[in-house]
Amino acid sequence: MKKKVVLAFSGGLDTSYCAIYLSKDLGLEVHSVIVDTGGFSKEELENIEKRAYDLGVASHHAVDAVKGYYDSCIKYLIYGNVLKNNTYPLSVSAERVTQATAIAEYAKEISADFVAHGSTGAGNDQVRFDMIFNILIPDVGIITPIRDMKLSREAEIEYLKQHGVEFNAEKAKYSINKGIWGTSVGGKETLTSNGMLPEEAWPTQVSKEGSEAIELEFEKGELKALNGQKYDHPSEIIQALQAIAQPYGIGRDIHVGDTIIGIKGRVGFEAAAPMVIIKAHHALEKHTLTKWQLTWKDQLSTFYGNWLHEGQFHDPIMRNMEAFLSDTQKTVTGKVFIQLMPYRFQVIGIESAHDLMSGKFGSYGEMNNAWTGEDVKGFSKIFGNQVMIYHKVNGSAEG
Amino acid sequence: MKKKVVLAFSGGLDTSYCAIYLSKDLGLEVHSVIVDTGGFSKEELENIEKRAYDLGVASHHAVDAVKGYYDSCIKYLIYGNVLKNNTYPLSVSAERVTQATAIAEYAKEISADFVAHGSTGAGNDQVRFDMIFNILIPDVGIITPIRDMKLSREAEIEYLKQHGVEFNAEKAKYSINKGIWGTSVGGKETLTSNGMLPEEAWPTQVSKEGSEAIELEFEKGELKALNGQKYDHPSEIIQALQAIAQPYGIGRDIHVGDTIIGIKGRVGFEAAAPMVIIKAHHALEKHTLTKWQLTWKDQLSTFYGNWLHEGQFHDPIMRNMEAFLSDTQKTVTGKVFIQLMPYRFQVIGIESAHDLMSGKFGSYGEMNNAWTGEDVKGFSKIFGNQVMIYHKVNGSAEG
Amino acid sequence: MKKKVVLAFSGGLDTSYCAIYLSKDLGLEVHSVIVDTGGFSKEELENIEKRAYDLGVASHHAVDAVKGYYDSCIKYLIYGNVLKNNTYPLSVSAERVTQATAIAEYAKEISADFVAHGSTGAGNDQVRFDMIFNILIPDVGIITPIRDMKLSREAEIEYLKQHGVEFNAEKAKYSINKGIWGTSVGGKETLTSNGMLPEEAWPTQVSKEGSEAIELEFEKGELKALNGQKYDHPSEIIQALQAIAQPYGIGRDIHVGDTIIGIKGRVGFEAAAPMVIIKAHHALEKHTLTKWQLTWKDQLSTFYGNWLHEGQFHDPIMRNMEAFLSDTQKTVTGKVFIQLMPYRFQVIGIESAHDLMSGKFGSYGEMNNAWTGEDVKGFSKIFGNQVMIYHKVNGSAEG
Amino acid sequence: MKKKVVLAFSGGLDTSYCAIYLSKDLGLEVHSVIVDTGGFSKEELENIEKRAYDLGVASHHAVDAVKGYYDSCIKYLIYGNVLKNNTYPLSVSAERVTQATAIAEYAKEISADFVAHGSTGAGNDQVRFDMIFNILIPDVGIITPIRDMKLSREAEIEYLKQHGVEFNAEKAKYSINKGIWGTSVGGKETLTSNGMLPEEAWPTQVSKEGSEAIELEFEKGELKALNGQKYDHPSEIIQALQAIAQPYGIGRDIHVGDTIIGIKGRVGFEAAAPMVIIKAHHALEKHTLTKWQLTWKDQLSTFYGNWLHEGQFHDPIMRNMEAFLSDTQKTVTGKVFIQLMPYRFQVIGIESAHDLMSGKFGSYGEMNNAWTGEDVKGFSKIFGNQVMIYHKVNGSAEG
Repeated sequence: MKKKVVLAFSGGLDTSYCAIYLSKDLGLEVHSVIVDTGGFSKEELENIEKRAYDLGVASHHAVDAVKGYYDSCIKYLIYGNVLKNNTYPLSVSAERVTQATAIAEYAKEISADFVAHGSTGAGNDQVRFDMIFNILIPDVGIITPIRDMKLSREAEIEYLKQHGVEFNAEKAKYSINKGIWGTSVGGKETLTSNGMLPEEAWPTQVSKEGSEAIELEFEKGELKALNGQKYDHPSEIIQALQAIAQPYGIGRDIHVGDTIIGIKGRVGFEAAAPMVIIKAHHALEKHTLTKWQLTWKDQLSTFYGNWLHEGQFHDPIMRNMEAFLSDTQKTVTGKVFIQLMPYRFQVIGIESAHDLMSGKFGSYGEMNNAWTGEDVKGFSKIFGNQVMIYHKVNGSAEG
Repeated sequence: MKKKVVLAFSGGLDTSYCAIYLSKDLGLEVHSVIVDTGGFSKEELENIEKRAYDLGVASHHAVDAVKGYYDSCIKYLIYGNVLKNNTYPLSVSAERVTQATAIAEYAKEISADFVAHGSTGAGNDQVRFDMIFNILIPDVGIITPIRDMKLSREAEIEYLKQHGVEFNAEKAKYSINKGIWGTSVGGKETLTSNGMLPEEAWPTQVSKEGSEAIELEFEKGELKALNGQKYDHPSEIIQALQAIAQPYGIGRDIHVGDTIIGIKGRVGFEAAAPMVIIKAHHALEKHTLTKWQLTWKDQLSTFYGNWLHEGQFHDPIMRNMEAFLSDTQKTVTGKVFIQLMPYRFQVIGIESAHDLMSGKFGSYGEMNNAWTGEDVKGFSKIFGNQVMIYHKVNGSAEG
Repeated sequence: MKKKVVLAFSGGLDTSYCAIYLSKDLGLEVHSVIVDTGGFSKEELENIEKRAYDLGVASHHAVDAVKGYYDSCIKYLIYGNVLKNNTYPLSVSAERVTQATAIAEYAKEISADFVAHGSTGAGNDQVRFDMIFNILIPDVGIITPIRDMKLSREAEIEYLKQHGVEFNAEKAKYSINKGIWGTSVGGKETLTSNGMLPEEAWPTQVSKEGSEAIELEFEKGELKALNGQKYDHPSEIIQALQAIAQPYGIGRDIHVGDTIIGIKGRVGFEAAAPMVIIKAHHALEKHTLTKWQLTWKDQLSTFYGNWLHEGQFHDPIMRNMEAFLSDTQKTVTGKVFIQLMPYRFQVIGIESAHDLMSGKFGSYGEMNNAWTGEDVKGFSKIFGNQVMIYHKVNGSAEG
Repeated sequence: MKKKVVLAFSGGLDTSYCAIYLSKDLGLEVHSVIVDTGGFSKEELENIEKRAYDLGVASHHAVDAVKGYYDSCIKYLIYGNVLKNNTYPLSVSAERVTQATAIAEYAKEISADFVAHGSTGAGNDQVRFDMIFNILIPDVGIITPIRDMKLSREAEIEYLKQHGVEFNAEKAKYSINKGIWGTSVGGKETLTSNGMLPEEAWPTQVSKEGSEAIELEFEKGELKALNGQKYDHPSEIIQALQAIAQPYGIGRDIHVGDTIIGIKGRVGFEAAAPMVIIKAHHALEKHTLTKWQLTWKDQLSTFYGNWLHEGQFHDPIMRNMEAFLSDTQKTVTGKVFIQLMPYRFQVIGIESAHDLMSGKFGSYGEMNNAWTGEDVKGFSKIFGNQVMIYHKVNGSAEG
């Protein structure tokens, strides 16, 4: 009986090569799987399925992971206002982790002997796939034909041709990865340290002008409504907002960061909904959380984002941090008002029953009644006491 | 002989009241002082001096603190890419600390018996002034007439009138504080949790259109040149860049944050040069520093900014952090290319001899030669080893 | 009708003074309350009650807070292995916060108009009491006669005498504060920077010799059994262990630390059970948690301890951190073996179904089978990749 | 012409095997090198040199690294009071990094083509050696015969015998690694999760009784004198103190920790001088540094120790942290008084011109004159202001 391999399949050149190679050269029963994290239309998924069967797979399975992706990951990225290096919503990183996890579960489900992915030896994805498979299904072998054989594009096309599969020889100028939490765009300008992607490289062209007011409603940190309309699941609000905001060209940027393997990388991305949601959520938190809640959330979520980026989603510290982040959201309920404009947006303000800026307790810079100037005088003395002593004791030590 | 008081003097209603009150009611010899941190023109300083003498001060002194402000403070805010709550360059906070320090030094210099400031009992500034005076000149008494007597605007104007000084009774709609590291704008909309400042409230009106490329050159983290032109002191580059960029309306935003006294406050600001410089500097660092340098710089400079905001500039931990930050800048040398546009700007890229993204060591997503796919396979196994063991030992503990 | 005041009452000189002063001089109806956090015997509590009624209070109430103290606070100090400045189990700090909270709740319950405490103006306790009352019962006035009137010991004794109450004029050489989480000892030697408390100053004299093996069992981070015997509540294990271990003189030390008001303070303490429990719990965690769980627990619990010490227990960040700490304890289940000896103890080892050191996954320094030398070679290359690039790019920059 | 290999040589079985294998089987010119970090006597070094030449090396070189080890590494471990997992002074980790660095420099100096080490595939050392060689001499090949060939002890002895070298077939019960910053002891009990090393396993037997007072003097954080006697170099004080304190059995413990490769490991160690010095230094800092200096030093030095442990000494973040730590030591000058006793020691107190506990500024718990009770009242109100507002706004949200 043939041994089973689960192949992470996208329908692209590399995984098409793998499909043939695994069955023809390695004699395995190939079960292709694609995990949809919001990047595919129904039609695209059907085409991918068709291609899989054309390549002779024993079965093809599409996992609809959009809601699960939000529930297990995006939710916490919002709670934590996570932007890697203060810029990037981790669109691809978060997606890949979700996909690797879903594939590992599928391999376990069908009792596969092997799991295969089409990563090359040059990027982050190989580490995420390898490591998550090692962690979740340590007894299942990992096969990575493209990385192991260092095949050129031409060699792959030629091999496919020999097996009766035609593949367009022309490489796209930019490689694009789409998901519900953003779309990445890499190529040409991003391969060097200097240069912005040209207008035409962006997947969504700017088609809106003028200005548009929107309203996002959060309940305990989670998206509840957009422009007053409630949705069944927060992922639907992300998609609805994306449809409204991306045509303004909002959330386009270039991220420069550290790959897991130690080199620096640059990648463009468009992520209108993620950027608007994170900034809106953060604004609501600035009004409803205490100083130290804000400070510690920053520290923990910076690590959370970095560790997710490095594929370490299954470290139990991540669950512990999620427990922390969830607990901070108890009062993050209210509305945020935002203005959308070409290439940018502005948070206008918030409205919340938990707003600590409530005028009842004294307005900043205005007179108030919860405390006196005398109180502040005492506070200032005690608050500076130790440093006063330090300077008395050490004199001009600082000088 | 009369006792001497040094009065922090701005020429506004509150400090004008203090000038008269200290000399007439308290019988002190008043020495007014103004510390210029980049917010005043030569003409404005002359008017303030004239007003001081009109109010009968024994002497008036203007401290030109712009370069010293940069050297002792702004420099580190740039090294640390400091934006409070990820938004605000700490324009006012940093300035006030510098002013209080300069005033304390002046009081020591002229052997003053008292030092006076015109703060009310409702804001951050009273704490900064009180505390820094307590720390640096603990034996000099502090007098705060406005806070202590809780005087209304009308009462102050009436008092001044009685002493022969006319003051415009109309209060400005927005209160503005200008300095080299940004201009704050407070009033009306910022006193509530919802509402953006109207176009006319911004001190610098938008007068430029189109797009403009600029080039900033850094040497060990410090500004060296703007558009290829070198300047004697980095503060001059800040001012030159501000003149170019502010007319685009760049760097306008609203900051929501925690005051030292525990309430939430909102304030508008325009800070084109600070925002462009910080984002440019950060981009250069993303290319030239290691992952953990970036991570730790973030943590330390977040605290540095918060502690500065709270007036704790003279805590020796601040010197220790400055030593850390300075040491990180050894390789932060190179050019940054930026595009300015109405209301926004974009960092296009960098050029540096210290760029760790150098193609010599393998490009992200492309094949490379410093390591092999086999190396990454081993890395992925070991990198995930502990978490693999955790899941083996604990089974579905997570589920 | 007389207004009601709740008085935090210990039966000592200061609070006895307050009892009389509040009723006689201020004309209030005095309701004394004592919160037992494990420091009083039944007999002592009865004596305190008797004294209260002798002083003429309208009512006296004793709150048995031992279990509640453990559930709301000590539990998390154990989860976090909290030792302030790496030394002090926060015996007094934690207790005071619990007491202030219980008193505030009692004041609310009986609708008191005022709450009074006997703190002087020189220590931490005044801040903890004042602040927690301000936070939880902001509309109830706070009265602090000893602090306000700066009374000397002699003056208080004289005043009491005038009201027919005799008080021993001799001051104890050391002031002692006892609770379930440790006993503090202050006086003479601790008032200077150099000097150890003499043998006779310690409340528990050393009466055991030789060596004794004990076994502590934890379940999800909580104490479950001592020497194989289960108890209904973890606080009972603390007390049972204390009875066994304190006669060895274990857990005696001097803590030097920062007071809330900025000065440095030194205090002796004996805390055999807390020290043994924390070290045992930490040992179990070192075997059952991942590297980053240990690292982040350290960071959060250091802050948790410091913030508790400063009386900020009611900041919601504390609840968030408790959620984090609780979540980390899911696998902290097992037995810890400890050897007790005069003045010291040693953790001998642990036994846990969650032990990540399990020999099944390769022993340290011995050959293993979950990975190969080749894997480590690859790991080492990639793990050092960025720093290799840094040195290649920057040459002898470091030198 | 033969190619040159530098061999990290200890004279033990593994590296003796390597010496023969590299020259006989691989045909290389072997240059053995030993780096002394305080673990060898003159006689031992001579014996090792003799053995090297007996094994036929082309040259043998001994690097005296004791002072350099202190200057580049131990100094900062003291500044940072570094104890891994709050227990272990990092004796072996720090040493290995120093040795690998010295070997890399030597390989560069003699233009070696290869560098070889005798590590197996099971521990931390292979990563430290591999990685530091990759970083500092990336163009020099690394040879690891023992790891690559997975040789058994018996096979090595047999191979050596065939080449005319006799080696004692009996393996020591415990493997010991000695250096100036501590001696590690591994074997039997440490290979499981439960069990203490027996008395006879410790390299230094307990030979002192009673109690002995010593005095350590620090100047800007560095050791200056022991019992009033000054030494030329701090490393000499470490050695002198070790001779005094180790015969008490001080500083013996078992460390449980995470290896670089993800498994947990346990190791015994004796480190009297390091433990006494770190606790003494920390005590001095508790008196002379401000609260936030202490807090941040903890955070940075925890990372510094962990990153050093993982062999990442050459990451520039380590230099940045050293700059920070050095800057904090400006006022860490004074004497520390310590009592040594069998198996334990006690810091008695300190004396320093920089002591912030100076009685001049108010003693803890005693009346003072730098501030008033009124000041503290105001402080307490403002210090708790935000949390008071939080509870007012959110009511029983916490409950």
